[in-house]
Amino acid sequence: MNISIIGATGYSGVELIRLLKSHPEAKIESLFASSQAGNELTNVFPHLTNIAQFPLEAIDIEKTAEWVFLATPSGVSGKLVPSLLEAGRKVIDISGDFRLPQETYQKWYGKETAEESLRQKAVYALPEWFSEQIKGAQLVANPGCYPTAASLGLAPALPYIDPNSIIIDAKSGVSGAGRSVGLGTHFGEVNENINAYKVGKHQHTPEIEQTLTRIGGKETIISFTPHLVPMTRGILCTMYATITEEVNFQELYQSTYEGKPFVRVRPAGSYPKTKEVLGSNYCDIAVHVDPRTNRLVVLSVIDNVVKGASGQAVQNMNLMAGLEETAGLEFSPVYP
Amino acid sequence: MNISIIGATGYSGVELIRLLKSHPEAKIESLFASSQAGNELTNVFPHLTNIAQFPLEAIDIEKTAEWVFLATPSGVSGKLVPSLLEAGRKVIDISGDFRLPQETYQKWYGKETAEESLRQKAVYALPEWFSEQIKGAQLVANPGCYPTAASLGLAPALPYIDPNSIIIDAKSGVSGAGRSVGLGTHFGEVNENINAYKVGKHQHTPEIEQTLTRIGGKETIISFTPHLVPMTRGILCTMYATITEEVNFQELYQSTYEGKPFVRVRPAGSYPKTKEVLGSNYCDIAVHVDPRTNRLVVLSVIDNVVKGASGQAVQNMNLMAGLEETAGLEFSPVYP
Amino acid sequence: MNISIIGATGYSGVELIRLLKSHPEAKIESLFASSQAGNELTNVFPHLTNIAQFPLEAIDIEKTAEWVFLATPSGVSGKLVPSLLEAGRKVIDISGDFRLPQETYQKWYGKETAEESLRQKAVYALPEWFSEQIKGAQLVANPGCYPTAASLGLAPALPYIDPNSIIIDAKSGVSGAGRSVGLGTHFGEVNENINAYKVGKHQHTPEIEQTLTRIGGKETIISFTPHLVPMTRGILCTMYATITEEVNFQELYQSTYEGKPFVRVRPAGSYPKTKEVLGSNYCDIAVHVDPRTNRLVVLSVIDNVVKGASGQAVQNMNLMAGLEETAGLEFSPVYP
Amino acid sequence: MNISIIGATGYSGVELIRLLKSHPEAKIESLFASSQAGNELTNVFPHLTNIAQFPLEAIDIEKTAEWVFLATPSGVSGKLVPSLLEAGRKVIDISGDFRLPQETYQKWYGKETAEESLRQKAVYALPEWFSEQIKGAQLVANPGCYPTAASLGLAPALPYIDPNSIIIDAKSGVSGAGRSVGLGTHFGEVNENINAYKVGKHQHTPEIEQTLTRIGGKETIISFTPHLVPMTRGILCTMYATITEEVNFQELYQSTYEGKPFVRVRPAGSYPKTKEVLGSNYCDIAVHVDPRTNRLVVLSVIDNVVKGASGQAVQNMNLMAGLEETAGLEFSPVYP
Repeated sequence: MNISIIGATGYSGVELIRLLKSHPEAKIESLFASSQAGNELTNVFPHLTNIAQFPLEAIDIEKTAEWVFLATPSGVSGKLVPSLLEAGRKVIDISGDFRLPQETYQKWYGKETAEESLRQKAVYALPEWFSEQIKGAQLVANPGCYPTAASLGLAPALPYIDPNSIIIDAKSGVSGAGRSVGLGTHFGEVNENINAYKVGKHQHTPEIEQTLTRIGGKETIISFTPHLVPMTRGILCTMYATITEEVNFQELYQSTYEGKPFVRVRPAGSYPKTKEVLGSNYCDIAVHVDPRTNRLVVLSVIDNVVKGASGQAVQNMNLMAGLEETAGLEFSPVYP
Repeated sequence: MNISIIGATGYSGVELIRLLKSHPEAKIESLFASSQAGNELTNVFPHLTNIAQFPLEAIDIEKTAEWVFLATPSGVSGKLVPSLLEAGRKVIDISGDFRLPQETYQKWYGKETAEESLRQKAVYALPEWFSEQIKGAQLVANPGCYPTAASLGLAPALPYIDPNSIIIDAKSGVSGAGRSVGLGTHFGEVNENINAYKVGKHQHTPEIEQTLTRIGGKETIISFTPHLVPMTRGILCTMYATITEEVNFQELYQSTYEGKPFVRVRPAGSYPKTKEVLGSNYCDIAVHVDPRTNRLVVLSVIDNVVKGASGQAVQNMNLMAGLEETAGLEFSPVYP
Repeated sequence: MNISIIGATGYSGVELIRLLKSHPEAKIESLFASSQAGNELTNVFPHLTNIAQFPLEAIDIEKTAEWVFLATPSGVSGKLVPSLLEAGRKVIDISGDFRLPQETYQKWYGKETAEESLRQKAVYALPEWFSEQIKGAQLVANPGCYPTAASLGLAPALPYIDPNSIIIDAKSGVSGAGRSVGLGTHFGEVNENINAYKVGKHQHTPEIEQTLTRIGGKETIISFTPHLVPMTRGILCTMYATITEEVNFQELYQSTYEGKPFVRVRPAGSYPKTKEVLGSNYCDIAVHVDPRTNRLVVLSVIDNVVKGASGQAVQNMNLMAGLEETAGLEFSPVYP
Repeated sequence: MNISIIGATGYSGVELIRLLKSHPEAKIESLFASSQAGNELTNVFPHLTNIAQFPLEAIDIEKTAEWVFLATPSGVSGKLVPSLLEAGRKVIDISGDFRLPQETYQKWYGKETAEESLRQKAVYALPEWFSEQIKGAQLVANPGCYPTAASLGLAPALPYIDPNSIIIDAKSGVSGAGRSVGLGTHFGEVNENINAYKVGKHQHTPEIEQTLTRIGGKETIISFTPHLVPMTRGILCTMYATITEEVNFQELYQSTYEGKPFVRVRPAGSYPKTKEVLGSNYCDIAVHVDPRTNRLVVLSVIDNVVKGASGQAVQNMNLMAGLEETAGLEFSPVYP
């Protein structure tokens, strides 16, 4: 499988390079990065010295390989995908451009995106829930980092909780903000610090609602609050919902995710840590029932750069290509 | 005012020394620390070289000064307070021993504490709400770190929210776990990591419920989830509640805390950061209304070692002694 | 004493505001920050809410108060100082523009600076060594952060070490790079990371050499290597020199710095930590002799934003104004 | 290849598990950890859930597999190795017990170790320099973390520098102190902090001297100062030496390490970062010449848990077994 990455110098792009270099079937053919065109990859990322030697090229659809990963900022893939599809490429879009109906996208992202007719060609690719649609797709929309952790954590419980009671309090490492520079990622400003941001306004809110509504079959409106945590990688979603029917949630989760290689339902009473999935494609989940408040509390952790972006993208590529879902992704978290 | 600190070598103890050394009316007379008795303070804390020169002594009630701060682990002050009161000392207890009814304490802390009759002599000393009772008290129970941030953040809204809808998602720096050693505070385990702990079981839960019930006048049962964040100081409480009556929450908060020197209600749309109060006695609060879910989202930050422990203890001492509430506490946060 | 700060929105500027707000004799009158002119200080620094309320103004020499602190990037004060002096202001320049002979400056900074005749009017203001010249000066050049830690740490030993054997291996927190944004201060790039930079080329090299040459009376050429450490504040200099005459270095250092309130010579065998001076104006020093190699190893720590910049600037203001050297600077480090 | 790990619950032990699980030829058979005997591996390390399922056993030589890794504290392997050798096992000792002559060990470690006659059976296994002796060895002493970074960084230059001018200023992440609890690894004490320790006394000093003396052929006495940096993984050695013969050091290093897959000599002018090797077995080296002082400055970075311990141990196993040196170790650093 020959591969091109467009947007190779962001954090999702460079993580794709790490993962695909160890993939048994994949071969990176070309890297595109408009801001760095003409430069060498190892000048931008010296950690890839002797590992990946590539020129960084200006985007040119003609030069792309059969498989194309789009690790681009919002608003870019909407423009590139039509020609990629026309050229017959298989496309995995890591950006948000194809995840939401055009109107919803424009409302929450404040940007233009692809026409809704084109948009609908994309399969929303959360592999643990929609693998059948992913297999054989030509264009998939890789889920966002927060939506991955949140949806995997809440989906099994949906029949037994009040869909309008859901509160998702999410915490992310700084790499989630990408590699662009700004005061918001300046070490002096974010180290020894934690804060919420975009309360009630984060663009991942409608994506989570759409997924929960689709899986649960009931219109779902959530409260979603993201936070910035002084660490590089990792997302923890702490999620609250009122229980409408008492079931054994521990067993429910275990049976739901049996056979899903990247979801690890942790034993009753566990407190998963982001560090326990660092560098890996796992999503670790623990369920707690609080009898005092009749609430379910679900804890879900991922590495935002892997299961929340590039790892899941490779998992989707595997499914699209009919490979083992775990190909190239079977490595242990890096601990400590 | 002559002062003794019992438990001088924990983080609350050493912060009391920092604060009291700059206090215009206070003079530290003696420091007690059973585990370090016989040692010099500056051997334990070299940062106090040339600033505070004291021997560390074994606890001896007779030797205590008129004002006594108890910065001891749970279960200790319950035993010391009777003799301190008998000896006529003014006592500020930073531990949890006098905050809850005996039965509640024993259930949540799993430890013995003082008899309920003695316990009731203690004034629960959240100064922004109970200053009248604090003035002239002989024994005060200094609130816990999480309860301080949570109660200050929710109290003004209580008449207008559903008391049983309250969810408090709290994030704390590692100093909240104290200076005792253990895997839970090992750098290799908590750095680059975030996790929830004690879901539905944290001992600060009944303290918050008691305060909100008292202020709001309605029985209040909350969901409270603490998290450990890879930073040294700081607590952020992100709090959710369903609005039962629409009011201008921004104005409500501003007018409620007008004249309260240590609560800063931040402008509409703000996202207070823990770093913005680091080293200071401020509690910064922002209120957000989410019309999509009809929920109020309150953000409240403190420095857990200052407003969440030793700073508030000094504020209480000031009130008890009839001094200006701000005496010795008027310094800026340390930023960055 | 009425004060203006030019460059109020960098890290040195905002630290000056923190320190001067607690100073018994100083009153901030105006703040200048060209990039933020027209904005309110608390919009840029919400942590100063209710503490310091000022508009940020475009630079206007006429509007400056009697005392002017220049907390500007390299190359700016060289241009502003002539008119400030003409207007009769007392000037404390925190930037590097007046520390080096014009030619040396231009070689190491790669920028223009003031004419050498003007430059020579500035007193190099390391107060522990040059207090007599500072008293009564109209213009002082506040030393750089690395030169402060290095010079204080090495100066007493100079008569007894080989001046050409000196190696200074320095480690700094990220705030030393200022508040400007760039990949070099991006959290994702500097967290969990350490690296050297500008080996043999850092602009503080000639400043250290100049000071050691002046104090020691012997031409001194050093190796100086700065490093970036994943912390916000703090500098540690680890310094090596070959001993030419055996003396009791511990006693030498203690007697040299007796009566210097901000230098704490730590007991023999100590390992000072940057955290032990955080937020304070102290420089803590420990001396070790390695008999196997006949080398002296000196460890010197400061808070780069305080003793390495704004705290020392206030100390210099105190000296210039004939106040107690410690006025407004007598507070404890913040620990932990 | 069947493998046992003794000391499986320290940081070197758990890293061995990560690496060996991805190794094409290795199969972990049993894990020994006296302090945790009877427990399950995933109770101690939940991040290995679904990856490595093993009971933790009390040490029993009879039960060990053919290949034994010793990841034990100082003083333990000296006692275990005789019976392991007798039982015919191939042994890779990650601890320091077999690296130094008995007398030197006892002086620097302050502990007993194996008899010198036994000790001499161990091959000091720095693979880039001693691969011939490693091939076919039954017992190897894996180098220490600091000695690996330092020796690889200095070895090529030895003919052209003064061996008694060498100064090694080393900086390590906190995982280097192991997983044992203590104030020295408490987050509140080491976060936002840097300090030197064991100046002139660190037990890795004679190991580095022995290696440099052996490679360079000249008696070498060094100054070595380790520092603790607020990060989890990584070592940077900044090394200084006086040049005795001018050569093209860049070319010298490149040609010396040509064909050594885990040493990456970075281009002239580089500043390698510890993050650029995180999680990988690489040692990245840059050489700088300072003409002002006639000194060579070498920068050398490794991941202390990988190339500084378990990764190098696997590399040595590969050599001993006649496999490709890189087997199981060909993965990219984790960045960011």
